[in-house]
Amino acid sequence: MVVNDQIKDKALFAEMEAKLYTAVLCDVMDDLGYRNQAMRETIRPLDPSFVCVGRAKTILAVDVYQLSGDPYKMEIESVDSVRPDEVIVACTNNSIRTGFWGELLSTAAQTRGARGVIVDGLVRDVKKIVALGFPVFAAGIKPVDSKGRSIVLNYDCPIECGGVAVSPGDIIMADYDGVAVVPKEIVADVLKRALIKVEKENKSRQDLIAGAYLRDVYRRYGTL
Amino acid sequence: MVVNDQIKDKALFAEMEAKLYTAVLCDVMDDLGYRNQAMRETIRPLDPSFVCVGRAKTILAVDVYQLSGDPYKMEIESVDSVRPDEVIVACTNNSIRTGFWGELLSTAAQTRGARGVIVDGLVRDVKKIVALGFPVFAAGIKPVDSKGRSIVLNYDCPIECGGVAVSPGDIIMADYDGVAVVPKEIVADVLKRALIKVEKENKSRQDLIAGAYLRDVYRRYGTL
Amino acid sequence: MVVNDQIKDKALFAEMEAKLYTAVLCDVMDDLGYRNQAMRETIRPLDPSFVCVGRAKTILAVDVYQLSGDPYKMEIESVDSVRPDEVIVACTNNSIRTGFWGELLSTAAQTRGARGVIVDGLVRDVKKIVALGFPVFAAGIKPVDSKGRSIVLNYDCPIECGGVAVSPGDIIMADYDGVAVVPKEIVADVLKRALIKVEKENKSRQDLIAGAYLRDVYRRYGTL
Amino acid sequence: MVVNDQIKDKALFAEMEAKLYTAVLCDVMDDLGYRNQAMRETIRPLDPSFVCVGRAKTILAVDVYQLSGDPYKMEIESVDSVRPDEVIVACTNNSIRTGFWGELLSTAAQTRGARGVIVDGLVRDVKKIVALGFPVFAAGIKPVDSKGRSIVLNYDCPIECGGVAVSPGDIIMADYDGVAVVPKEIVADVLKRALIKVEKENKSRQDLIAGAYLRDVYRRYGTL
Amino acid sequence: MVVNDQIKDKALFAEMEAKLYTAVLCDVMDDLGYRNQAMRETIRPLDPSFVCVGRAKTILAVDVYQLSGDPYKMEIESVDSVRPDEVIVACTNNSIRTGFWGELLSTAAQTRGARGVIVDGLVRDVKKIVALGFPVFAAGIKPVDSKGRSIVLNYDCPIECGGVAVSPGDIIMADYDGVAVVPKEIVADVLKRALIKVEKENKSRQDLIAGAYLRDVYRRYGTL
Amino acid sequence: MVVNDQIKDKALFAEMEAKLYTAVLCDVMDDLGYRNQAMRETIRPLDPSFVCVGRAKTILAVDVYQLSGDPYKMEIESVDSVRPDEVIVACTNNSIRTGFWGELLSTAAQTRGARGVIVDGLVRDVKKIVALGFPVFAAGIKPVDSKGRSIVLNYDCPIECGGVAVSPGDIIMADYDGVAVVPKEIVADVLKRALIKVEKENKSRQDLIAGAYLRDVYRRYGTL
Repeated sequence: MVVNDQIKDKALFAEMEAKLYTAVLCDVMDDLGYRNQAMRETIRPLDPSFVCVGRAKTILAVDVYQLSGDPYKMEIESVDSVRPDEVIVACTNNSIRTGFWGELLSTAAQTRGARGVIVDGLVRDVKKIVALGFPVFAAGIKPVDSKGRSIVLNYDCPIECGGVAVSPGDIIMADYDGVAVVPKEIVADVLKRALIKVEKENKSRQDLIAGAYLRDVYRRYGTL
Repeated sequence: MVVNDQIKDKALFAEMEAKLYTAVLCDVMDDLGYRNQAMRETIRPLDPSFVCVGRAKTILAVDVYQLSGDPYKMEIESVDSVRPDEVIVACTNNSIRTGFWGELLSTAAQTRGARGVIVDGLVRDVKKIVALGFPVFAAGIKPVDSKGRSIVLNYDCPIECGGVAVSPGDIIMADYDGVAVVPKEIVADVLKRALIKVEKENKSRQDLIAGAYLRDVYRRYGTL
Repeated sequence: MVVNDQIKDKALFAEMEAKLYTAVLCDVMDDLGYRNQAMRETIRPLDPSFVCVGRAKTILAVDVYQLSGDPYKMEIESVDSVRPDEVIVACTNNSIRTGFWGELLSTAAQTRGARGVIVDGLVRDVKKIVALGFPVFAAGIKPVDSKGRSIVLNYDCPIECGGVAVSPGDIIMADYDGVAVVPKEIVADVLKRALIKVEKENKSRQDLIAGAYLRDVYRRYGTL
Repeated sequence: MVVNDQIKDKALFAEMEAKLYTAVLCDVMDDLGYRNQAMRETIRPLDPSFVCVGRAKTILAVDVYQLSGDPYKMEIESVDSVRPDEVIVACTNNSIRTGFWGELLSTAAQTRGARGVIVDGLVRDVKKIVALGFPVFAAGIKPVDSKGRSIVLNYDCPIECGGVAVSPGDIIMADYDGVAVVPKEIVADVLKRALIKVEKENKSRQDLIAGAYLRDVYRRYGTL
Repeated sequence: MVVNDQIKDKALFAEMEAKLYTAVLCDVMDDLGYRNQAMRETIRPLDPSFVCVGRAKTILAVDVYQLSGDPYKMEIESVDSVRPDEVIVACTNNSIRTGFWGELLSTAAQTRGARGVIVDGLVRDVKKIVALGFPVFAAGIKPVDSKGRSIVLNYDCPIECGGVAVSPGDIIMADYDGVAVVPKEIVADVLKRALIKVEKENKSRQDLIAGAYLRDVYRRYGTL
Repeated sequence: MVVNDQIKDKALFAEMEAKLYTAVLCDVMDDLGYRNQAMRETIRPLDPSFVCVGRAKTILAVDVYQLSGDPYKMEIESVDSVRPDEVIVACTNNSIRTGFWGELLSTAAQTRGARGVIVDGLVRDVKKIVALGFPVFAAGIKPVDSKGRSIVLNYDCPIECGGVAVSPGDIIMADYDGVAVVPKEIVADVLKRALIKVEKENKSRQDLIAGAYLRDVYRRYGTL
């Protein structure tokens, strides 16, 4: 059963990566009344080539000001429990005190099958992460460790990241335009509508390249 | 007559692209007492290779919070009215709610002969815009559409963009160092002085590479 | 004597560039109780390939609002007095009014033997600086000159840059992850510990790639 | 009919002013799943004594950069159309360029029967407004007029103010703790629950004053 | 001669305090094309009762990071050189590191005849300053001294304060609505027009109180 | 023994309230090399009359995004464990999502003997807190509860508040100029020096009122 779900997920994510992009997902969710599904513009891919699609595995990290006995306990637990095709989405409450994520965590997550990481805070070891080809999206880069600066408080719980509510199991798509969150209950509908909208956009593009005016193209296909 | 002007513009812009850059334009305007002609550092090219020079065609967009009957009306009108060798300069009042500009608008503007776009807000479809080779400069990237978030209120009107007043017909030059606005009434003077300053900078550079001290180079050419 | 010091410095900096990186320096300084040695995440390399290590030569620049008689006097003096293997660290109090640093200053500093520049403000002539291969790290880019906007008030004095106190002679290491400041009095200790930590990280990496869980790797090597 | 509604409104608003406050309204809306009904902390009363309750009359103002023919047209229209017991809620998109509201507008609105004004931008003539006893809540104070800086684009339309969506007819309550927006469809339920919660808080207070521990009080009444 | 000027100034300032206010000055300067004469909204009076009018005596302070030999030298000189009826306008480049101004400086300035202080940074000893009845306007309050944090670099020089260019000798008016800067070359014109505008506003007010609609009042007097 | 300490504390705090103020404490700590002991200027008293001195009892609160089983557990525990003459110092990591502190908590803390509260976040029920005469200093006001928005993670632990490190047992003094933190290990020295400095300031003040120039007063007493 679970295996079946995983197979379905893999097919879904492959199709999304091949045919869709965050902009069209956001347009379609707008039409469905979900108007706050794109994260803030400050969360950017570490490399321009990065794209990732997967199920959200959420992590909540918080700032602290002392070294506790076992500072990495929950962070280790959260990463070791990653399942294939998940995208880690980490809320640090926009902390700029620490590089929350780094190369060794990336290696570990990749080994577990994670498809990427979205974090509203800072990361480090960026060149090594890029060399791994592991799609990490973050709000910035700083070379300090989280030890004594933040701890993972919880995981697999509701969070906010980049101004968007994220629940475990939501579909995350991230590309060069940003990060979109598709609530799990509307995935099928969003997918169907997005594929249709991509078609329209392709036609609009062709007509525009052929020299048509926007007013005519918009009248024809109803999309910009 | 208008055709003559267009030919003159083309020659002017070609010369500027070939010989000048934003830094020297700003220095020369400083000397003429125009000291606020460079836009804020937050407005960056989508691609490092982007350079553009042209006449400003201004657009004023404003944030709204509902879908009106015809949300794209003025936006379509403004883009369809672009003339060859214009650079669209769009004021969104620094809005980060929407991707004001995208690929289809770029295609349309490029077809009309636009030389680029400067926007103080966010854009989307960035990889496709870069593939078009259409120089867009923006304050950031977000995958959401403007529908229900902002409308074009007016165009071909005075605006502010990146902290600089821009009037229709001003000359815009944008490169990797930023965006400079040359008021139309001082273009000839700026151009003449800028070409002279470039010469001095070339001499300074040669002497410095040869090992000269700054104090001697500055005494010699009066420029850094 | 001084020559001996310079030879030692060259060897030290070469070893650091070859074997170390800012992240491991910060971890080791954290352990020694120096927990605020990484500059703010806003200071970034102009080119992803830039790395630099050297002795801090500090400059303090301040914003002004008029042209004084000799606006570049102290700036010229500060750059002309650069010694080989120094890294210029400039505090502009985070000014975004001016491009404090540019190509001609880079050429001059490079000729004097400087290894790079760190500035908490803006710079210009970026493509030419990148072409020089001179590692400049800055908070942003703007094409305007400092003339009438800022002056160098002092140099070889204590400053703050990117939120970190910097004294002349401290060791600066800057790479894609950011900028670390190693106070001169702890350099030897930091170096020794950093080399050990790099070894542990290498082992952790190998085990993780081999599929080990984080909990086991952390138990084994005590490092993430 | 409309007169009846107005009489009901008056009674409702009087009861709310007498017995309720923004904090208890927010708690009750939280419990009902309406968790973003309190405006940002930057919107403050011009005078500590100000309290106001009423139906939202919304205004949307936008920044412009030139004097149009009739700059106050829509602003005048919007204020002249105010009905008794309305609270004007104005979105300026957080503009700090202009004093959007002032004394003469306050006098006009008060004459029409308005109960107050909430604006996410700046105001002027503050001492005169305070002397009128007209409750204005704003994000700051600046002595410049809106002429050539902003225009009213629309009114009686959905807006956002202080980060909260506001529709015409929602109930606004503003006091020293801030501004709460009660969507019109839940007013009755909110009112009923708020009155009950006030009772519990009164009991908690009495016990705490009598020396009880929080743990006991919270166990007893389930409220802090 | 100088004495004559001082007598004229005293009369001018008395008339302005009695009959005018910052809002009307800004409106009149707007009409004359001086549209950036009101300081940012962050600069507020330490006490709501504070009003001050006088000639600008400018001070430029800059942040430093070490104790120099004589840290107060220029600050003392600048305050000891204050002349009667001057308003000190201090640019700290918006520094929040230090309480630039305090009670003893207020006492000294008041003794010299200063009419007030405007500072774009922080101040301390606020309750004592308020007790002196000396009108200080500042961007905030912090109890630390400037020693080792900032020095006065220059005075009686052009500066910017709160985003407005200020030259020595400009007229400053500050009240609860903010701080207006009247360039010395337009003082007479501004004064004349402002007195006329006050009259119109008085008439508008009376009509509005009497129940008139804004549209009629604006048609009648052309002012809001 | 503990009782003895409490008696000593009471005497100490009474003397500090009677004779000292935050500005002089900061000056003296500056001289001792403790140069970051004043909190950010954003933390202000809810009422201008508020002054408080006491031992720091620290609380660390963090933002969360769901309702846990027992959201107030640690918050209740932390407040119920307050001892006489303590000042609660709460770090919320500058959260503006919630009113962390309110009237009932104030009543509870006051009953336990607390002398005040310093919080780097927002509070609510402000008029009731002011009526209690309980000195609360905060970064702002918002009427929403912490339930589902933040939890107390720990207390009696090292924190940062307003940019200053605070350890349990440090002495806190807060007045209209701000909040000063005196590390417990230097209290006696600070107290002694502060009393001497107050004397010098009194003499400076008298001379300045008598008309002396700053340069002479500074030469005489070495203090501004």
